[in-house]
This record gives sequence, structure tokens and C-alpha cells, in this order.
Amino acid sequence: MQVNFNKMKNFDISLYLVTDLELSKDRSLEYIVEEAAKGGVTLVQLREKNISTREFYELAKSLMAILKPLNIPLIINDRIDIALAVDADGLHIGQSDLPYAVARRLMGYEKIIGLSVENIQQARDANNLDVDYIGLSPVFSTNTKLDINTPLELAGIKEIASFTKHKTVAIGGINSSNAESIIASGADGIAVVSAIVSHENPKQAALHLKSLVTNAK
Amino acid sequence: MQVNFNKMKNFDISLYLVTDLELSKDRSLEYIVEEAAKGGVTLVQLREKNISTREFYELAKSLMAILKPLNIPLIINDRIDIALAVDADGLHIGQSDLPYAVARRLMGYEKIIGLSVENIQQARDANNLDVDYIGLSPVFSTNTKLDINTPLELAGIKEIASFTKHKTVAIGGINSSNAESIIASGADGIAVVSAIVSHENPKQAALHLKSLVTNAK
Repeated sequence: MQVNFNKMKNFDISLYLVTDLELSKDRSLEYIVEEAAKGGVTLVQLREKNISTREFYELAKSLMAILKPLNIPLIINDRIDIALAVDADGLHIGQSDLPYAVARRLMGYEKIIGLSVENIQQARDANNLDVDYIGLSPVFSTNTKLDINTPLELAGIKEIASFTKHKTVAIGGINSSNAESIIASGADGIAVVSAIVSHENPKQAALHLKSLVTNAK
Repeated sequence: MQVNFNKMKNFDISLYLVTDLELSKDRSLEYIVEEAAKGGVTLVQLREKNISTREFYELAKSLMAILKPLNIPLIINDRIDIALAVDADGLHIGQSDLPYAVARRLMGYEKIIGLSVENIQQARDANNLDVDYIGLSPVFSTNTKLDINTPLELAGIKEIASFTKHKTVAIGGINSSNAESIIASGADGIAVVSAIVSHENPKQAALHLKSLVTNAK
């Protein structure tokens, strides 16, 4: 007998912030995240590649302290060790991270696990997994990630939205000029990096994106 | 009431191999480790910094399959997620990895945890921790690690050996020309990277180092 824990996870994926210290213009992640939370982000993913494990852990602890009282889930990119160490709300894995089954075994069924899919076939395959959401990546081309695949474009979002059983969040090159079109194409949410972390006013940026997403729904 | 699990961990730290794919001269880690095991290495640490989590996981699985039947413990560097995913025998952490207390909580008391100490003070501090061994790093200068501190030299090994309550393994610039002097200075074992992984005959290299360590004890 298996309990469907997914039903217990009632998280809002509509405005999903992904961190990047290198794009934060010398402002602390704590500042960016706190401001973005005031502006209405509904989920935060800590994704950092060029810092030590200790620094990653310290950042994750700080962000948990900020987000927990606000009931905004913190998702850790790739590193289950960090997610377990700070008891984060979830984990995000890509196709070159640990296999989903291993991630689920270590994280447990009560945690959110999201998986990046980079093409239609991976999105189809994800229908066989009890992930909590899929990240559609990249929608548009972007300079944030180095190893990106062919952009899915709005047509890819529409196609995936037509068959996936999962919540979807689109990522890659999303900003206030195209946010509405992403939601109109069927994604449940937008994930942004530079549109918030590089913005001179992260709170204002989040507020604006949030209103665009809400209007488009 | 606390059980002293350390007493149950009867591992031999005398010849400790640390991997480095980039120094392996296009030979697979599986080949290097299998040959080194035939030559008598007593412990293997998987330490790789420039590969994806998935590749790290696959390597860890392969090495477990080779080492488990030989009763040679596999220790994972830094990444508790990988250690947990493959049920490795232990974890090695440095001063910029997760704090020891967090690592122990996640790994459990039955696993081996080793900690690198880079100076006398850190070795003294480690006497307050129930780590299973300490790595003395670096003994000599080396090109294997980029961010090395001042070498401890043989005098540092002698001093630490005089007060530490832990098993010790020295690392950094160790090869057949200085292995005996390390043991003679009081270390319980030597850890090597290039002296085995870059050697044209890893089995022969391990056999020779093993005989030097055995003779020096």
C-alpha cells in the first residue's frame, strides 16, 4: 500500500527564483532572496556551482532561516548532501545529476523533487516518474548555463503541457517581456535567474513578474 | 549511554590510494584501482572534482563493485550524497567541506569518517572530534592540489603523532623515495595519488610502496 505523498505537497510553482551569486552584482544572496520573497516569489532554488561545500551549506542554512517563516520552499540544486544537511524542502536534479530513483530514496517521499527535461522525449519519460514537477529547459537561449541544449521555444512548452502529468515550470531566457507568453503556452510557472538576481530592485522585479503571471492565468 | 563504534572499525590505513582521473594517463579508474588493489592498497578514496554528479556516482558504484569483494574500504571525498547513494564505507572531509558534526549525523556512526588537518592547531582541535582518522596534509609540496597550505614536513608529522589520539595518514608529495621516512616519523599510513595513478604499472607501484611501509613499521 503506497500513500500518495504528492497530494500532500501543495506548493505554488508560479514564480520560481533560481540563484546565481555570480550574477548578483556583489549583493548577498540573502538580500536578493529576502527582497524577491517580499515581491512574491513562490519557490527558491539554491543553485551554485563555483563555491565550496561549506559555503554552499552556510548559504543554504541562511536561506532556510529566511524562507521557512514565510512558508516559501527552498529547493537545493543537485546536492542531496546539502539538502539533507539543512533539511531543505526539496531537491532539483538535472539529467547529469543522480538518477531520480536514488534521489527519491535518499530524500524521502515527503520532499519535493523536480527534474529538468531538455526535450520532448525526456518529458515523456518523466511521465513514468513520480517527480513533483518538471523544469522545461531551456525555453529560450540564455547565457546563464554553459551547456544548454536546443531551446524548446513556446511550441515545445505547448506540446509538453499537452501530455505531461506533472506541474511544469519553464526556465531559460525568461523575463518580463515573455513571461505571459510562457504561461499562455501552458506552463504552470516561470523560473528566472537574472531577471531577478541581476535586477537593480529584486523586489520590484519579482512584483512585476508575479503580476504578469497572475494576469496570464 | 554511547557505544564506541570506532572500536568496531578495524581498518588498515597503511597504504591509502586517492584517485585522480586527470593524472591517470587515459587509463580508467577501474583499471588503476583494480591493479592497485592487487598490489596491496588498504583503502581507496574516490576524489574527483571536475566530473558531473552522475559520473561521480557511476564511478563510485564501479569502485564499490571492485573493492567490496576484496574487503578494501571505499571512502568518498566530500560528497555525502554519493557516499549514501552507493553505501560507501566512509567519507573524507576537508576544512572547507561540511562540518564534521553534520557529516557524522548524515553518515551514521558505523561509517569511517576522515578529516584533513593542515596544521598543528587543526590536529589539536581534531582531538575533540570522534573522527576515525586524520589526514595530515600536505607533508611535502605537491602539484596535485591547487589550494595547498605550508607543508607540514617530517617535523610536523612527528609533532602531531606525539599528541593525536587518532590514526594518521600523511598525504602530499609522497613517493617511494620518502615513504619510509613518513612512517618513521610516526604516521600510521601514507596516502598517494600520482605515485600510483600516474605510474605505468600501478600494481608494481603499490607493491613497492607497501613493502616500504611494512619494512618501516
